[in-house]
Amino acid sequence: MIGKGPFIAVDWGTTNRRAWRIDARGDVEAALEDAAGVTSVAASAFPAKVAELRETLGDLPMLLGGMIGSNRGWHETPYVACPADARTLADAVLWVDERTGIIPGAAQKRRDAPDVMRGEEVQIVGALASGLVPEDTTLCLPGTHAKWVRLREGRIASFSTWMTGELFALLGKHSILAPQMQGEARIGPGFAAGVVASALGDPLARLFAVRAAHLLDAPVTDGAGYVSGLLIGAEVRAGLRESEGEVLHLIGRPDLTALYAAAIAQMRGTPDASVPVIDGNAAFRAGACALLKELS
Amino acid sequence: MIGKGPFIAVDWGTTNRRAWRIDARGDVEAALEDAAGVTSVAASAFPAKVAELRETLGDLPMLLGGMIGSNRGWHETPYVACPADARTLADAVLWVDERTGIIPGAAQKRRDAPDVMRGEEVQIVGALASGLVPEDTTLCLPGTHAKWVRLREGRIASFSTWMTGELFALLGKHSILAPQMQGEARIGPGFAAGVVASALGDPLARLFAVRAAHLLDAPVTDGAGYVSGLLIGAEVRAGLRESEGEVLHLIGRPDLTALYAAAIAQMRGTPDASVPVIDGNAAFRAGACALLKELS
Repeated sequence: MIGKGPFIAVDWGTTNRRAWRIDARGDVEAALEDAAGVTSVAASAFPAKVAELRETLGDLPMLLGGMIGSNRGWHETPYVACPADARTLADAVLWVDERTGIIPGAAQKRRDAPDVMRGEEVQIVGALASGLVPEDTTLCLPGTHAKWVRLREGRIASFSTWMTGELFALLGKHSILAPQMQGEARIGPGFAAGVVASALGDPLARLFAVRAAHLLDAPVTDGAGYVSGLLIGAEVRAGLRESEGEVLHLIGRPDLTALYAAAIAQMRGTPDASVPVIDGNAAFRAGACALLKELS
Repeated sequence: MIGKGPFIAVDWGTTNRRAWRIDARGDVEAALEDAAGVTSVAASAFPAKVAELRETLGDLPMLLGGMIGSNRGWHETPYVACPADARTLADAVLWVDERTGIIPGAAQKRRDAPDVMRGEEVQIVGALASGLVPEDTTLCLPGTHAKWVRLREGRIASFSTWMTGELFALLGKHSILAPQMQGEARIGPGFAAGVVASALGDPLARLFAVRAAHLLDAPVTDGAGYVSGLLIGAEVRAGLRESEGEVLHLIGRPDLTALYAAAIAQMRGTPDASVPVIDGNAAFRAGACALLKELS
C-alpha cells in the first residue's frame, strides 16, 4: 500500500538507470538518467544509491524494475511464471521497506525453452494499460537480448530471447569483422543489403562475406549496417513467421525500434511508419503506474 | 621447377605453423609444429623464420600455404578464382626465390556471395589427389571459419564460409554465456542436446536458453557442449540440405571433424563412423605433393 502517487518509477538496468517522479495523474514531473547500472554499484552501496534518487526526485514511494531485482542487483526478486500480468507481477513485488518495492521479472519455466526477462515485463504491462497494444498479439522488444512476446488475453503467455544485440556488439568489438564494422548501425544501403542477405540463408553463413568482400577489393557498403541488417533481418523474419499474421508491435529505444521497423517494412514492401512503435521509457512509466494501481 | 622432392611443405596459419620434410615418394621424414603463426611474426622477420625451418628440416625446396600468403603474411599472393584446381593453383604460385613458393588461396568472386580461403585449397587438392573424395561432391572443412565446398569435375566450383568456430570462441570468452561455457566443446549429452535444439529454430534464438536455464536453477548439461552442438547443428543442417544427398566428406583437425561427424550421425540416426573423415594435416601434405608434381 503505497498510495496512488506521486511516486518514483525506476528502470534500473545493467549499465544505466532511469528514474522519474510521476504525479497522481501519471504525468512526469522530474527525471534522472545516469550510468549507475547495477554492475557499477557495489552490493553494499545500493541503499545509498536509492537514497540519492529520493534526494534528487523527492522523498516518495518507489517502484523499481529491471536488473535491480537480479542476483547482481540490490535484492534478488524471484521471477513470476508465465502466464504473467499486472496482477501476478504486483502480487510478487518484493518490499524492501513499506514504501520501496522491487518488481519481479517474468520467467518461462519450460525445460525445452527456458527463458527470463527483467524490465520488459513492466513495459509490456504499460503498453497494455495504455491501450497501445491489443490483448492478443505479438510484441518485439529490441535490445541486447531482444524479446519476442506472445500476449494472450492480456497476459504474457510465452516469449523467446534473441541475443541479436549482444552478438552485434561482440562481432563489432572482438571478431575478424571488427575493422569493417566501425560506427553505429544505421538505416541505409548497407543495412538494406544485410536485410536482403538475411533471406538468402543462415546469417552465420553470410557474415564472413563482410571480410571476404574487403579482401577482394569490393567492400560492402557500411559493414556495421550490413551486419545489423543481416542479424535483425534473420530475427524479424523468424519472428514474423511465428507470429502468424498478428499485428506486430515494437517497444523499445527509438534508435533500435527504428532499425527493426525498417527491416520489417523492407520485407513487407511498406513504409517504415506502417509498423506500430511504442517508446520503451513511456511504456515503462505506464507499466509502473499500472502496477501502482494494482498495489493501491 | 623445384624437382620432385624431397621438399618441405608448410601449412602456415594465423596462430600456428606446421612443416614437414617429405621424401620423393610422399612420405614424411621429419616434422615441426610451433606457435609462430603469421600474426606473431614481424613483417621483416619472415626470411629468418623460413631459414629456421630449413635449418631444422633440411636445406630443401619449400612450398608454403595458408595465411603466409595473406596481407598479414610474408608476401601477399593473389587468390585464384573459382573454379580452381591443382593446375590453376600451381600456375599462380608466387616464387619468393627459385625454390621457395607460396601457394595462392582460392576466391569466389561473386558480388552476391564473395568468399575466400587460404590453406583449405591445398587440403582439398590433396584429398582429391589421394582419391579420398569423388570429383563431384560436397566437402566440409571445420575450423574457425568453416568451409563448405562444392566440387565439380575435380575442381573447387563454389564455397561458403561459416564463422561457427569464431562465434563459439567469442561466446565462450566475451558473452553473458561465458560462465556457463567453461571447458572445451566435447561430444556428450550437452552437445547432443544442442544438436537437437538446432532443429527447433534459429540458433540465435536458442543461445540465451543457456543463461536462462542457469538462472532458473535448471542448468543445461555442459554449456560449452550445448552451444557447440547448437552452432554446429545449425551449420550442418543447412549444409546437408544444400548438398542435396551428396556423400559429405569432412576434412580437418580430428577433434573438430569428430564433433561434426557426431552431429551428422545424430541427425541421420547412423553411427559416427559412417561419416567419411580425412585428417587435415595428411590432406595438406598430399596437396603439397600434388602441387609439386604440377610444378615439376
